[in-house]
Amino acid sequence: MSKQLRVTFEPHGRAVFVLEGTRLLEAAGCAGMTIETPCGGAGTCGKCRVRLTAGAGGPTGQDVEFFSAEELADGWRLACQTAICADTVVSIPASSRFADRHQILAEAQAQTADDVLPAIRKQYVQLTPASLEDDAPDLIRLQEAIGHVQADLETMQTLSRSLRECNWCGTAVLSDHRLMDFEPGDTTGQCYGAAFDIGTTTLVGSLLDLNTGDEIAIASAINPQTSFGDDVLSRILYSQSSPSSAAELRKTIIQAVDDLISQLCTQASIDRQQIYELALTGNTTMQHLLCGMDVKQLGEVPFTPTHGRGLIIPASDLGLSVHRQADAYVFPLIGGFVGGDTVSCIIAAKLSQASGPTLMVDIGTNGEIVLAHDGELWAASTAAGPAFEGARISCGMRATHGAIEKVVIGDDVEINVIGNAGASGLCGSGLIDLAAELLNAGIISPMGNLLTGDDLPADLPIALKKRIKIGADDQPEFLIARGSQGQRITLTQRDIRELQLGTGAIRAGVNILLKRAGLAASDLDAVLIAGGFGSFIRRSKAQRIGLLPEDIPHNRIKYIGNAALNGARWALLSTRIRAEAESAARQAKHIELSQDFEFQSEFAQAMIFPDGE
Amino acid sequence: MSKQLRVTFEPHGRAVFVLEGTRLLEAAGCAGMTIETPCGGAGTCGKCRVRLTAGAGGPTGQDVEFFSAEELADGWRLACQTAICADTVVSIPASSRFADRHQILAEAQAQTADDVLPAIRKQYVQLTPASLEDDAPDLIRLQEAIGHVQADLETMQTLSRSLRECNWCGTAVLSDHRLMDFEPGDTTGQCYGAAFDIGTTTLVGSLLDLNTGDEIAIASAINPQTSFGDDVLSRILYSQSSPSSAAELRKTIIQAVDDLISQLCTQASIDRQQIYELALTGNTTMQHLLCGMDVKQLGEVPFTPTHGRGLIIPASDLGLSVHRQADAYVFPLIGGFVGGDTVSCIIAAKLSQASGPTLMVDIGTNGEIVLAHDGELWAASTAAGPAFEGARISCGMRATHGAIEKVVIGDDVEINVIGNAGASGLCGSGLIDLAAELLNAGIISPMGNLLTGDDLPADLPIALKKRIKIGADDQPEFLIARGSQGQRITLTQRDIRELQLGTGAIRAGVNILLKRAGLAASDLDAVLIAGGFGSFIRRSKAQRIGLLPEDIPHNRIKYIGNAALNGARWALLSTRIRAEAESAARQAKHIELSQDFEFQSEFAQAMIFPDGE
Repeated sequence: MSKQLRVTFEPHGRAVFVLEGTRLLEAAGCAGMTIETPCGGAGTCGKCRVRLTAGAGGPTGQDVEFFSAEELADGWRLACQTAICADTVVSIPASSRFADRHQILAEAQAQTADDVLPAIRKQYVQLTPASLEDDAPDLIRLQEAIGHVQADLETMQTLSRSLRECNWCGTAVLSDHRLMDFEPGDTTGQCYGAAFDIGTTTLVGSLLDLNTGDEIAIASAINPQTSFGDDVLSRILYSQSSPSSAAELRKTIIQAVDDLISQLCTQASIDRQQIYELALTGNTTMQHLLCGMDVKQLGEVPFTPTHGRGLIIPASDLGLSVHRQADAYVFPLIGGFVGGDTVSCIIAAKLSQASGPTLMVDIGTNGEIVLAHDGELWAASTAAGPAFEGARISCGMRATHGAIEKVVIGDDVEINVIGNAGASGLCGSGLIDLAAELLNAGIISPMGNLLTGDDLPADLPIALKKRIKIGADDQPEFLIARGSQGQRITLTQRDIRELQLGTGAIRAGVNILLKRAGLAASDLDAVLIAGGFGSFIRRSKAQRIGLLPEDIPHNRIKYIGNAALNGARWALLSTRIRAEAESAARQAKHIELSQDFEFQSEFAQAMIFPDGE
Repeated sequence: MSKQLRVTFEPHGRAVFVLEGTRLLEAAGCAGMTIETPCGGAGTCGKCRVRLTAGAGGPTGQDVEFFSAEELADGWRLACQTAICADTVVSIPASSRFADRHQILAEAQAQTADDVLPAIRKQYVQLTPASLEDDAPDLIRLQEAIGHVQADLETMQTLSRSLRECNWCGTAVLSDHRLMDFEPGDTTGQCYGAAFDIGTTTLVGSLLDLNTGDEIAIASAINPQTSFGDDVLSRILYSQSSPSSAAELRKTIIQAVDDLISQLCTQASIDRQQIYELALTGNTTMQHLLCGMDVKQLGEVPFTPTHGRGLIIPASDLGLSVHRQADAYVFPLIGGFVGGDTVSCIIAAKLSQASGPTLMVDIGTNGEIVLAHDGELWAASTAAGPAFEGARISCGMRATHGAIEKVVIGDDVEINVIGNAGASGLCGSGLIDLAAELLNAGIISPMGNLLTGDDLPADLPIALKKRIKIGADDQPEFLIARGSQGQRITLTQRDIRELQLGTGAIRAGVNILLKRAGLAASDLDAVLIAGGFGSFIRRSKAQRIGLLPEDIPHNRIKYIGNAALNGARWALLSTRIRAEAESAARQAKHIELSQDFEFQSEFAQAMIFPDGE
């Protein structure tokens, strides 16, 4: 295994390990920070400015064009041009970060005052005590300070006592025009919300400081419903299998989200009661199961969801324990298979405001595909399977500590492992890399066969040849690495078939949406790749396996991270953006791929890997 | 006991028994029907038109003036002029009824369509089933038929299944813009609400058909909190006596209201789940205890209530079991001792629209007094004690079956008993009658002493003299009647003191409000007496004991029934009237009598009975 280098990002101190020669742009992606690259990393736009504070290499020709001598001496570089050759410490200015939450909040604040605030706000008040001369009822006295609000019974039951015990000084917790609580003293500094992406396979939760928009904790977990079936259809079937099955599915997911809340609170050292709002996004079936709504009709033509617009539900009704008066915003839906996660991606990627034809692909167990063109939105969903999240792959795993996230094949195999640890398995981006490299090496055929013996290229390096074996069930397999425990980490023929199914499904969906809009792939101004499947997608590898059309220039392809989660975060931080989500969901045209007569042939075609260079 | 005659009112068939010679106007009041009498029963306005269908006596001179020969032959008479001399059947046209709910509803319907509806409405819909061509989400499909509504989680959880099971035809239950339920088939005919007057001593509940405004059941009970104290102050003290006392008080009242709901449903043969809304009115302390809000501060200067505006609370949060999504409207408050029942009376008596100076007195354990003059409202409350509701009176009882409700003293005592039954006790109106008659007979002195022996008038009929005895505790008592079990029903010296306290408190309050407004009693255009304390107040008797100023002509005094309950009914039937209640509550000036330096002297003065004729 070649040398791995540590790259530390300030001010957070988040660190990742990468292979020598990796670009700083990619390293930032691995660390979960997406950098602005309008030129696609060609070094021509000068947007990806970062400052190296340790481990700086010399400036490149492009660096010299964009920075003054003082700046260069001060460590300023273009992230897309900087190859890492030593342990590095780097700081990324807010202006270089893509779609940063702070930017969004700042943008929103430039609008009218009504638009800027998150639904939740806190206001510290010091009231004049009631007297015979001024004997207004307590709530009216409070309303004179904070505006007209509605109070729930539980808050009313203790309001008079609270006001007197805290000597008429305290903090009103408001959700829109609802008084959620009255807390003694000044608690305006403690105001939190949590956003969740409820994936079919993976759950991710993010804890936000609602005052600053900062993320103060993040946690993820496997969706425990996977034990009842890998994909949404199998969950729908399971929910109908006995009278208690639907409740059982609901209970497991609620418990898992509640556990994530615990982890988030522990990480940030806050109390659950200080979380005043939740935002939940997921595909239609996941949201229905979470809310305990019927899913039977989601498994039958015409696959109609119960609701379309977003829901605001007391978190306690869902069974989630945060502040007793907290609401959960559940995302609006587009259709039976195009759910809140798609809407969430649309707002995160600002697709409604896209200037030219833009394609967004959210790679997960469902591949969500949205095409924006001429003020219209087309949205579809396709069953990609969980391969990109590491499931149903023999040595697959999530993109966490120990996962092989990058593979380079030359004379032999070089890998990068998340956390600079011994390898435990292969995550989605590692799988894409590996398949692309094996295709280039001629070890996998365009039909997806893992070749052996005489079928292999004559000039295949011996080290690679040695890695190919016939496995236990008479299927060929490729040895990627030895794990930390000495175990074999391999790619099997069956793994390649899973990848082909996923790739083919997404690519077929992309092709059909382009046809509907009367566009060719080369017409696209931008292709946005979203997903929590790996740390950083390498565009050429995604194109090499046919996941993305080859005739799109690299500089138009961008990885935008976990856009579904980002959209949920934004919905928590800005009611204006929430309104955008509602309008995008109603605006988008829902393309039902399963009912499209061209889909099967596109799918069969897309399963075949492209011929390569 | 003299002869009692049955008077039956059509179309309800409600019947009462009255003494021979009683006016029909009074009999109607006893039956809970208030008749329009702008002239105060002088026979000069012609508004109290009724039609006798059995038991008609001949027409009076006034009848001849107001009716044609055909009408007279058809049984038409003025209710104020008709003395009952036989069992009678009478029908009262809607136009003759005072403040009838139907009238109110009809009035409201004359306004814009937005104003007319109760908060609750049902709409039957037949939807086009979802198809691939028309795959809108279920709630959006429903919203296309019923307009934009918010749905709660529980309704959403079963909506998709319900829609399909009922073949897309069913009834949406709406509260404002909230979808409360979706019921299979057409249930628009079954839509009910219940209004409650939560008195310190007495609870009354009324079940209304929200489609027609008809009352379909009525029930009353003693407030079980009386076992913790007679008046609001003793309840407030009790609630502070141990950590669980407040919860205990709340539990008893909630249980009692829930029992009344059972009785109402049984009477009307409907299910609790068909009650979609509640309206609750009571004095400030009763409302606070019912809602579980702190009452400690209501017992301390400056007696500030928790809320001022009306509350809308899920009935389930209150612990009342009706439709699972039903809300309870809890009345707005004016001040610590001037509560929702006063507001309720204001809207029932339309005091905000009063053209001339108008006084309203609601006689209960608290006497609520409101003065309307020149577009202003002054409101006060005074602790009258429970004597008018039959409590703390040795033989006192509520105005139900077996209660002596009328007393006439000539050579001996004549009584009328509710339900034509044997006497069991004395209700509020009977107590007022009895005291007035005993004053006239010289048996009670202006100071309120029950005279004995030589202090009695020399010419007192022997039958009356025989009724006066010295009771067990050396106190004089007057024998009113022998009960059905042969028991002695008496008025004691202590009973007279209780009556004096109640009368004095109310009269002192009235005097202070008049002073505040710069008015004399004779300036008043109207005096409206409200209360559930008895069936029908006899004006001259109320003036005889000093409860009302003597210098008000009879025709300006009207009994308007249980106005607190009526106001609650109206709030259930019309959101426009609910808005009136909110605005009246905020408009009214709260006069804190306990802090008025003149109150004590007025009170002492008013305890003395007037001199009489």
